Amino acid sequence: MDSKLPDQSELSDLSISVIGKADIATTFSRTNQKYVNDNEQVLVYSMREDLEAYRHSELTPPMFEVAGAREKIFFDPSELKCGIVTCGGLCPGLNDVIRSIVLTLSWQYGVKKVLGFYYGYEGISSQAKKAPMELTPDSVDDIHYDAGTILGSSRGPQEPSDMIATLVKHGIGILFVIGGDGTFAGGHAIAQEIKKQGLAISVIGIPKTIDNDIYCCDRTFGFTTAVEEAGRSIYAAHAEAKAAWNGVGLVKLMGRDSGFITAYASLANSDVNFCLVPEMPFELEGECGFLARLEKRLERKHHAVIVVAEGAGGNLVKATEKADASGNVKYQDIGLFLKEHIQNYFKSKSKPLTIKYIDPSYNIRSCRANSFDSAFCLLLGQNAVHAGMAGKTDMFVAYWNKQFTHVPFTAAIGKRKKLDPDGEIWQMLLATTKQLVV
Amino acid sequence: MDSKLPDQSELSDLSISVIGKADIATTFSRTNQKYVNDNEQVLVYSMREDLEAYRHSELTPPMFEVAGAREKIFFDPSELKCGIVTCGGLCPGLNDVIRSIVLTLSWQYGVKKVLGFYYGYEGISSQAKKAPMELTPDSVDDIHYDAGTILGSSRGPQEPSDMIATLVKHGIGILFVIGGDGTFAGGHAIAQEIKKQGLAISVIGIPKTIDNDIYCCDRTFGFTTAVEEAGRSIYAAHAEAKAAWNGVGLVKLMGRDSGFITAYASLANSDVNFCLVPEMPFELEGECGFLARLEKRLERKHHAVIVVAEGAGGNLVKATEKADASGNVKYQDIGLFLKEHIQNYFKSKSKPLTIKYIDPSYNIRSCRANSFDSAFCLLLGQNAVHAGMAGKTDMFVAYWNKQFTHVPFTAAIGKRKKLDPDGEIWQMLLATTKQLVV
Amino acid sequence: MDSKLPDQSELSDLSISVIGKADIATTFSRTNQKYVNDNEQVLVYSMREDLEAYRHSELTPPMFEVAGAREKIFFDPSELKCGIVTCGGLCPGLNDVIRSIVLTLSWQYGVKKVLGFYYGYEGISSQAKKAPMELTPDSVDDIHYDAGTILGSSRGPQEPSDMIATLVKHGIGILFVIGGDGTFAGGHAIAQEIKKQGLAISVIGIPKTIDNDIYCCDRTFGFTTAVEEAGRSIYAAHAEAKAAWNGVGLVKLMGRDSGFITAYASLANSDVNFCLVPEMPFELEGECGFLARLEKRLERKHHAVIVVAEGAGGNLVKATEKADASGNVKYQDIGLFLKEHIQNYFKSKSKPLTIKYIDPSYNIRSCRANSFDSAFCLLLGQNAVHAGMAGKTDMFVAYWNKQFTHVPFTAAIGKRKKLDPDGEIWQMLLATTKQLVV
Amino acid sequence: MDSKLPDQSELSDLSISVIGKADIATTFSRTNQKYVNDNEQVLVYSMREDLEAYRHSELTPPMFEVAGAREKIFFDPSELKCGIVTCGGLCPGLNDVIRSIVLTLSWQYGVKKVLGFYYGYEGISSQAKKAPMELTPDSVDDIHYDAGTILGSSRGPQEPSDMIATLVKHGIGILFVIGGDGTFAGGHAIAQEIKKQGLAISVIGIPKTIDNDIYCCDRTFGFTTAVEEAGRSIYAAHAEAKAAWNGVGLVKLMGRDSGFITAYASLANSDVNFCLVPEMPFELEGECGFLARLEKRLERKHHAVIVVAEGAGGNLVKATEKADASGNVKYQDIGLFLKEHIQNYFKSKSKPLTIKYIDPSYNIRSCRANSFDSAFCLLLGQNAVHAGMAGKTDMFVAYWNKQFTHVPFTAAIGKRKKLDPDGEIWQMLLATTKQLVV
Repeated sequence: MDSKLPDQSELSDLSISVIGKADIATTFSRTNQKYVNDNEQVLVYSMREDLEAYRHSELTPPMFEVAGAREKIFFDPSELKCGIVTCGGLCPGLNDVIRSIVLTLSWQYGVKKVLGFYYGYEGISSQAKKAPMELTPDSVDDIHYDAGTILGSSRGPQEPSDMIATLVKHGIGILFVIGGDGTFAGGHAIAQEIKKQGLAISVIGIPKTIDNDIYCCDRTFGFTTAVEEAGRSIYAAHAEAKAAWNGVGLVKLMGRDSGFITAYASLANSDVNFCLVPEMPFELEGECGFLARLEKRLERKHHAVIVVAEGAGGNLVKATEKADASGNVKYQDIGLFLKEHIQNYFKSKSKPLTIKYIDPSYNIRSCRANSFDSAFCLLLGQNAVHAGMAGKTDMFVAYWNKQFTHVPFTAAIGKRKKLDPDGEIWQMLLATTKQLVV
Repeated sequence: MDSKLPDQSELSDLSISVIGKADIATTFSRTNQKYVNDNEQVLVYSMREDLEAYRHSELTPPMFEVAGAREKIFFDPSELKCGIVTCGGLCPGLNDVIRSIVLTLSWQYGVKKVLGFYYGYEGISSQAKKAPMELTPDSVDDIHYDAGTILGSSRGPQEPSDMIATLVKHGIGILFVIGGDGTFAGGHAIAQEIKKQGLAISVIGIPKTIDNDIYCCDRTFGFTTAVEEAGRSIYAAHAEAKAAWNGVGLVKLMGRDSGFITAYASLANSDVNFCLVPEMPFELEGECGFLARLEKRLERKHHAVIVVAEGAGGNLVKATEKADASGNVKYQDIGLFLKEHIQNYFKSKSKPLTIKYIDPSYNIRSCRANSFDSAFCLLLGQNAVHAGMAGKTDMFVAYWNKQFTHVPFTAAIGKRKKLDPDGEIWQMLLATTKQLVV
Repeated sequence: MDSKLPDQSELSDLSISVIGKADIATTFSRTNQKYVNDNEQVLVYSMREDLEAYRHSELTPPMFEVAGAREKIFFDPSELKCGIVTCGGLCPGLNDVIRSIVLTLSWQYGVKKVLGFYYGYEGISSQAKKAPMELTPDSVDDIHYDAGTILGSSRGPQEPSDMIATLVKHGIGILFVIGGDGTFAGGHAIAQEIKKQGLAISVIGIPKTIDNDIYCCDRTFGFTTAVEEAGRSIYAAHAEAKAAWNGVGLVKLMGRDSGFITAYASLANSDVNFCLVPEMPFELEGECGFLARLEKRLERKHHAVIVVAEGAGGNLVKATEKADASGNVKYQDIGLFLKEHIQNYFKSKSKPLTIKYIDPSYNIRSCRANSFDSAFCLLLGQNAVHAGMAGKTDMFVAYWNKQFTHVPFTAAIGKRKKLDPDGEIWQMLLATTKQLVV
Repeated sequence: MDSKLPDQSELSDLSISVIGKADIATTFSRTNQKYVNDNEQVLVYSMREDLEAYRHSELTPPMFEVAGAREKIFFDPSELKCGIVTCGGLCPGLNDVIRSIVLTLSWQYGVKKVLGFYYGYEGISSQAKKAPMELTPDSVDDIHYDAGTILGSSRGPQEPSDMIATLVKHGIGILFVIGGDGTFAGGHAIAQEIKKQGLAISVIGIPKTIDNDIYCCDRTFGFTTAVEEAGRSIYAAHAEAKAAWNGVGLVKLMGRDSGFITAYASLANSDVNFCLVPEMPFELEGECGFLARLEKRLERKHHAVIVVAEGAGGNLVKATEKADASGNVKYQDIGLFLKEHIQNYFKSKSKPLTIKYIDPSYNIRSCRANSFDSAFCLLLGQNAVHAGMAGKTDMFVAYWNKQFTHVPFTAAIGKRKKLDPDGEIWQMLLATTKQLVV
């Protein structure tokens, strides 16, 4: 799924920060528990060619630390207080993760107090709209059946020292931040400031992105649910397209910078004839342009399905002036842009056309997690707690080569997985849609 | 569900046209078949007050003929050819109806030839894009699992005499027209012209409208499926709304002239706080206006869900110049209109607001029929065939007071069921949303 | 859907009991509320032939009182306490009904206290396992998203005087009993005992049966959801059947005394070739027996789907000695019985056979209500509250000819809707399955 | 997900057989196609400790060849005929795989003729019930929307030479076998016999097992769909359990030899209190036995959910004499066994108990594939075709460390993935269910 593996320089420091000294940690025995130690590591690269360089050299190939319960833990569970915050856009499974963290803290470690901060980082700041809520096994018992997040969310950064003041006020030992790239940047800033202030507070991230584009992470929760839900619109678009002579079903899906949802949904609903993603620029006009290829498709079959990621066609639409609270640039709506250009093109050629536009928007992210994502959330939450209890900090829990891993925030911040034009997914997709056939 | 029962004058002629003379019909015996005769009728009105007038008078209260297999049939099945056409917008269950008609003609009557005309009335005209396809039990075997219609569809009328020429050319004895109000107007025009020309061709309608607003018909297929699917967007909007401080989830649903989908979806997803339908005009501004009431709701709970039918607020938005091919007037998008006015209102008051807009559009009509609708389609198709075989014409098959019925096209054309402000549904909805509470 | 309408003697007393005297009731004005009065009534019969007898006579045809908000109410909302209990087997929508009752009492009448008794009538008895829980708008806010019932349930009657003692102890004014035939018998017994003791306690029923066989009631909640869910197993059985040479998919569904679920699920999934219900006895052996007909079907198509209600074939299987807590007789499992007999029959004829048996059991009743049922539950709950507030008692809220109605318990207890062999549903089903074709 | 990685001896020969000589292969250029060469390989092991042994040695760590389009192909597409067969139990996605193979052969290589053999290996034998069907892009166009397999299936081996005679008769160049362990054993036998006879026929496997236990393969199609569907029964069981005082919901799921479905479904529906799988024997009786732990759970919470794989408790139930056509041993039904023992235990202690048993059986495998599985099937099919066209044989297409791979049949036959008691999945599951807590 990964378009490009990180190169060595980006992973120069894969070691995880640990709060305080190793000898402070104490043994915490649990029955029926198999412990993981820090030497258990998984290769970043597993392709022959990537590993050749390390074969006969003294260099060790880069590896990620494997997540899981440690025998020695840093915090005293009987006194520990933890905090949880969810940031950025909604994603199926947020409540599953919250619940897993709370249950693991309580059941496996006996932690008594967990606070949920409201509406993202704002809720940890002095600008908080509401006081944090106490989270208990009872209060989170059945939240995994609900979409959204019981903690609310918001976008945008807050002042690290302001947030730390809140954490200190509440006596928080571990802060779990569930969010994406911007959230992790914020988490790293908090962790750095904590270090500077010499505090014993751990910051553990859980990657959340509907787009599945977080770096150093094979898979993020909610993605397969979003693809499934997106499939409903593609299916509807296909039915609409087939019902008309020269019928076109046009679906716009989330994906500002990466086309994973769009590409996977197109593979899963392989009736798609054109799949347009941010990573692959395309031209509208000209003999090999999108409009000419659509026209030829319609000549052959008289119906077509187009799926476009919101960030596709960046070369065609102009960026508007606005940016959202997290600083994400906003573009003119590519869906409506295409609809208009397609209509005009066929009108100019006096060819009949019926185009139906579907934008499921938040439908694909504000639904319940499917079973596959739900189980994944449960495991992410457990591993995040183990990492925090062991005194790890400034890192997030990821999934890599079938292992849950510890990844330093710095290894991922500011980077993004992208679809690789030469990669398997895109290659197979082109073979499926035949969209480059003229 | 019916906002207003038809008054007597509208139903002056509920008798069904029959082709030719009664004595032409021949007995067609079938084992295990119970026959229905034309004297089996169901009351149009069943409320005490509506019936008082008839209590001690010679007047017979209006009744609908009950549908079902007749012992005597008009057409000779061994020579009969039938045609099917689907018109107007898609609706869950179209393929179920087509399949039911084909299987009933074949299995129960032994009819050998059924033609499916493509893309609505256009397919029966001399402008047809494609020759009709032959429909057999094998070719329709599993089409009920697919959304849309295998025959395609289109909007707009065609010249009756042109269509009749096609029917005559193909030797069609019964034409089944699956569509809504406009389609029935077309069906009536064809039937009138057939009568004028003295032809023995029956025209039988099957009511299709995602909006459930066909007159003299308690229920139309696809409606509960659409309500279910609409619920997904309301659920998502609720999750989005709750995730933000002053979060608003705004959902626009189909319903140009009637608010049945919007109202039922709001009852089914009773987290809705404001339900706006075409039948109930509302004001934006002022102390009791929508914006003020939304503001108060947000003050109390800090989140709100609004569901609006596309035809609501007709007093607020201007009709654009365009009309679609069927002559339906098009309005400015009420969803985007509301979004903009809500944003401006809160901005002008310097109050925080997060609004998420979801327009599921064709998703709610281009999905598979649920079981309830699927079974209903099967029964509609069977009853339509029985009506046609008995020589009925210029009528459609409806459902009324738990009976499948025969209704003359003229009793329904140009009328529309509407939500009644004093009726049970709207009253209960107001009690649920509390949207008039200021 | 109704196999047989009640005859006149059964409905001799359709008047609803009212607690105390009419003049005790006081006017309770609500803005935007349209009131219903007791003269609004709906005909029990609406077919011409059923009404002929009343045409020129002094007899009034039987009618049901229409449900809805009354202008005068019996109880003082500011002092009223209410109780809710759910009895018998689970049914999709139970929590929707509970929620609707609580919200309507609170929002529309300002009732302050509602108690939920646990585990059916046992929870009102002195044998209660747990003290009742207080139900508030907050505590029921999102329970409609969960299957089951938050109050728990149980089968079997309790001593009326024992239960009344509990009601008196808690100061209950209205008791809402959600259940089926047995529950209503219990409700009637309580109401009779209340009358004897001269207490001002109302008992209002809400009909709950997965089987949709409650008398005087067109429709009960959860039914369409169960049919939908049952469809999953039929779909799977069809896939299994088609995958083998002489493949048979056999599905057993709930339905001890009536075959509504089985028949509707077979109509909705019209791939079913044999639909077996309690109302229509059949023979296994002989030339026209089930086994011979199955054999012929397999000779023609080499796969078949059979759907059987658990109470079908009562003439074939022996009743076991046991009865459940509600006194329902238990039969030998017809599904396994059929499986064995089919296997033996084909073995004896040395014909290949692959049979796959699916018994979804509780899956079809312990799922979330679909939108259609969910909306219906909401309306039932509102109408039940209006009835109770008006001082009605010893009755349940039903749905008849598109109206919510008040029906005395006595009109329905001990009776049951059945599929009518000559009725539309069964006739259309035979036409669909062709199961009597030899 | 893998309980235990293959050890070196098991992978001694990971090289793929290739038909004929390399120089026979000819270049087949395709536009926009990136080619994969045989040196692209992925490590079998990617954990540090597994790789230490290879660090400073001459030994190369074992690797799988990466799948994908090769530039040189062995067969001449213009003359090639291919065959497809589906064997063993149904699995969601079978039709997706068939469709992907047919479309890839046709669209990417221009292969003209693809035959589908009916009902498993039997259909290739001289015992075939039906002649093979021709598969074309048109005939497979929408089969991915249907559960099951359009080719039918069966269990059990056939004589290799008999099957080869059929292949030769039809001029088949590549045979695609979609099935599990037994099917691959059959495929290997065919490939060996082909080699012996010196024929140029390739045999390519696509792994199919609902249980996800095929060796050397991270993931098989249909698994997440099955887990999702299984979740419906667990959800229902939970609702049933909570509705009764000492309510127990007991669900039996597929999984004769491995507990992957059961374990994942329990993680996904984390209300499960006891998850019983074949890999982890347990005792019923005694202080730490299952019954005592269940009793204690009920004392604490008064409801419990148990999920048991059909092959669990092998130490408790006796194997019956029978074995199925594939030679799989059959056991006494563990679900009914547990139900009975639980009932007796509580009866003997005079404790109330309500137990509801759900066996969704074929429901979880005979449903449509979800989007995630559907996309996976598409990619598997494409890669299988590329392998076959390149002249590979005696191998199957697998998925390993994010790569589609080529695996020799011999590396997997007769082995099976199992849940590892010390592995992450089982450890996390124990932490979730707390089922070992006494």
